[in-house]
Amino acid sequence: MSTKIEPKILKGFRDFLPVKEIERKRIISILEKKFESFGFVPIDTPVLEYTEVLLGKGGGETDKQVYRFEDKGGRDVSMRFDLTVPFARYMAKNRPDLPLPFKRYHINKVWRGENTQRGRYREFMQCDFDIVGIDSASADFEILMMMRDSMRALNVENVTIHFSHRGIFNRLLEKLGIAENSVEILRIVDKLTKIGEGEVVRQLKDLTSEENAREIVEFIKPAASSVETLNKMERAAGGPDEDTERLRIIFQYIKENEMEDSFKLDPSITRGLDYYTGIVYETFLNELPNIGSVCSGGRYNNLASLYTKEELPGVGASIGLDRLIAALEELGRSSEKKSFTDLLILALDDQLFGYYHKLSTAFRKEGINCEVFHVKKKINAQFKFAEAKSIPFALVCGEDEFAKGTVNLKDLKKRKNWEGLTISEALEILKPLL
Amino acid sequence: MSTKIEPKILKGFRDFLPVKEIERKRIISILEKKFESFGFVPIDTPVLEYTEVLLGKGGGETDKQVYRFEDKGGRDVSMRFDLTVPFARYMAKNRPDLPLPFKRYHINKVWRGENTQRGRYREFMQCDFDIVGIDSASADFEILMMMRDSMRALNVENVTIHFSHRGIFNRLLEKLGIAENSVEILRIVDKLTKIGEGEVVRQLKDLTSEENAREIVEFIKPAASSVETLNKMERAAGGPDEDTERLRIIFQYIKENEMEDSFKLDPSITRGLDYYTGIVYETFLNELPNIGSVCSGGRYNNLASLYTKEELPGVGASIGLDRLIAALEELGRSSEKKSFTDLLILALDDQLFGYYHKLSTAFRKEGINCEVFHVKKKINAQFKFAEAKSIPFALVCGEDEFAKGTVNLKDLKKRKNWEGLTISEALEILKPLL
Repeated sequence: MSTKIEPKILKGFRDFLPVKEIERKRIISILEKKFESFGFVPIDTPVLEYTEVLLGKGGGETDKQVYRFEDKGGRDVSMRFDLTVPFARYMAKNRPDLPLPFKRYHINKVWRGENTQRGRYREFMQCDFDIVGIDSASADFEILMMMRDSMRALNVENVTIHFSHRGIFNRLLEKLGIAENSVEILRIVDKLTKIGEGEVVRQLKDLTSEENAREIVEFIKPAASSVETLNKMERAAGGPDEDTERLRIIFQYIKENEMEDSFKLDPSITRGLDYYTGIVYETFLNELPNIGSVCSGGRYNNLASLYTKEELPGVGASIGLDRLIAALEELGRSSEKKSFTDLLILALDDQLFGYYHKLSTAFRKEGINCEVFHVKKKINAQFKFAEAKSIPFALVCGEDEFAKGTVNLKDLKKRKNWEGLTISEALEILKPLL
Repeated sequence: MSTKIEPKILKGFRDFLPVKEIERKRIISILEKKFESFGFVPIDTPVLEYTEVLLGKGGGETDKQVYRFEDKGGRDVSMRFDLTVPFARYMAKNRPDLPLPFKRYHINKVWRGENTQRGRYREFMQCDFDIVGIDSASADFEILMMMRDSMRALNVENVTIHFSHRGIFNRLLEKLGIAENSVEILRIVDKLTKIGEGEVVRQLKDLTSEENAREIVEFIKPAASSVETLNKMERAAGGPDEDTERLRIIFQYIKENEMEDSFKLDPSITRGLDYYTGIVYETFLNELPNIGSVCSGGRYNNLASLYTKEELPGVGASIGLDRLIAALEELGRSSEKKSFTDLLILALDDQLFGYYHKLSTAFRKEGINCEVFHVKKKINAQFKFAEAKSIPFALVCGEDEFAKGTVNLKDLKKRKNWEGLTISEALEILKPLL
């Protein structure tokens, strides 16, 4: 074949080179272990679903971005654009096999044909976790705790989780007699940090009176402390109710668990989606506030209403994995690991490859990741290979060493050598150094 | 919304319930660790690619099965149907960033619109590993070793890896003057175990003389030992050459590493694909021979010829993950783990949830996976929840225990109780039991 096909990839899609894939897997693995330590279990759903199942009656902004097509059997199918809709479908379909409350996590790719100009990807990872089948402050709090703990597990201690309650905001809008405009109002309020207070008031005035606009803007400003903010919100909404009571209980849990530093009641947090009905939250890295929230979510009263009559209340959150990985990189807290190899067995003698592999097995059996260089090449080429994979140690065994039953060990970073070692001596030196 | 959408999934696609997903992840994790211990690194590629890139000039059997469509930008795109073609494209595109020999693994989903009647899935996992950029017996042998070690890591010791060399077979066909029919002949020979010797001869006779057909069938029969088989193959192919020399070296490596029991030279192994040029192999579980090969592959001399002039020889294999998981289940060697939770903190008092969460943190800090039951319910409902998640221990702390600063611990399987423990006493009891 003489004319070559250009090995190009689609805009918004990415290859992951080993160093990036190792880091992504490292982060995912830390998150998985953390979630599992809280009793969450993994699930998986198909990448392709019936379009009707994913989009329902459709019509939203997301629909335009969906990768949708007709399969060879004439079915209208789509690639999932988030992990929430498939999870709702999953709960409705598998409900009898899932004990409630059901705590699941799901970390996998989703696809949206978004405008890539804004630095967005068309193929990206989501990381969702939810507690479904229960409406309790304890479940709300567990999600908050797990968000904080997950960030800490990734070496990001300095976070603030801003939270609020959609019920209180809804009560304010009802009191002002503008509940029917809540979706548009939420959408405007949600842009506060982007467009500023003046512009929020201006946009709100297109929907309601100036007085109402001012009252909304007043409402979303935090007071000096979270308790004062709550009192102010409560007054604005018309007094105590279940929603303020729920937040007071959560305050108490936060206090009892000495986590006040990580949480802030912030009435400007509304989460634009219709979906949420209770507590809502966003997570900001104090060292990188401008990147926006790295973990957001809230409580909803009915996960799977599209598919089942059974009411499934829940609470959950989603980590923006790509954003988080970029943040860790910016903070210098990502790993640059190029491989897992601890020891490279150099190829010095064509007659010894069988023996080199035997040595490699002996080292692997002791927990040392070990590879054999596969062809007798100049020693510098072999060292270069070790450097490209950041392999810290090399094992040298030529004809003489083989005859004596010894090996030489090289610390490639410290340029230190040990000569004439038995295998067990080499193991003894290596083990504490790895 | 009153009319509900049926939460159905597409034929050939699957939901993974927690117990199945936990098991799949367990198996993948064991394989990943094994691959990494041999110096292999993970990569990732996009699920969607330009159709031209995946199918090349196309026309094959696979093409009909590909999920192919036009995206919203008018591009002809397809979902990957294997991990080999994207890897070839990846090597061509990222070559300057990849030190050779490059050893990668890739475990992820692929999609084929196959006939689901044969128990096949349209969405399934592949698990590929390759060493690219080198043509050496040591690399061939490393893949063989890693295949064997991977099965052992999954508690499947009793495997036989059948291998042969395409070069020897090709020499035979050249000698018989029927090299130009090699693709069709390979395809027939490949069906030997399925259709039997008689039918193979009959089908071969449509392509060549009866004498040639008999000679081919004679060639693919193994002799009493691997060494005798090789001698017989060598004679049939017209004497020693690079290919028989390569197999002799590999024999020696197998012997030096005392792995003879796991390997068998089997000239009927040809691997139907054009692609292979050197050693080829398939892996059979001796306890379940009928399920077919769970890990197959071979050496090829030019991975990315579709995209680049650079010759990239390599050797690799692919594990049929779904088949392997089914086999482990059949052998009773899969885990039925339902969750990772070690300890359930029972909800006995509404006032104590903040404290329950504090306790849960204390246990998690000591490596004990712990969750709080989120609502005060009848104790039996809470035990039922523990059973559904196979949680082995429960922590009991009501008003009295809280006042005394103690907890009670329950072993839910052995129905054993410890009462009036401090947290450290509870930890001391729990740790050795987990």
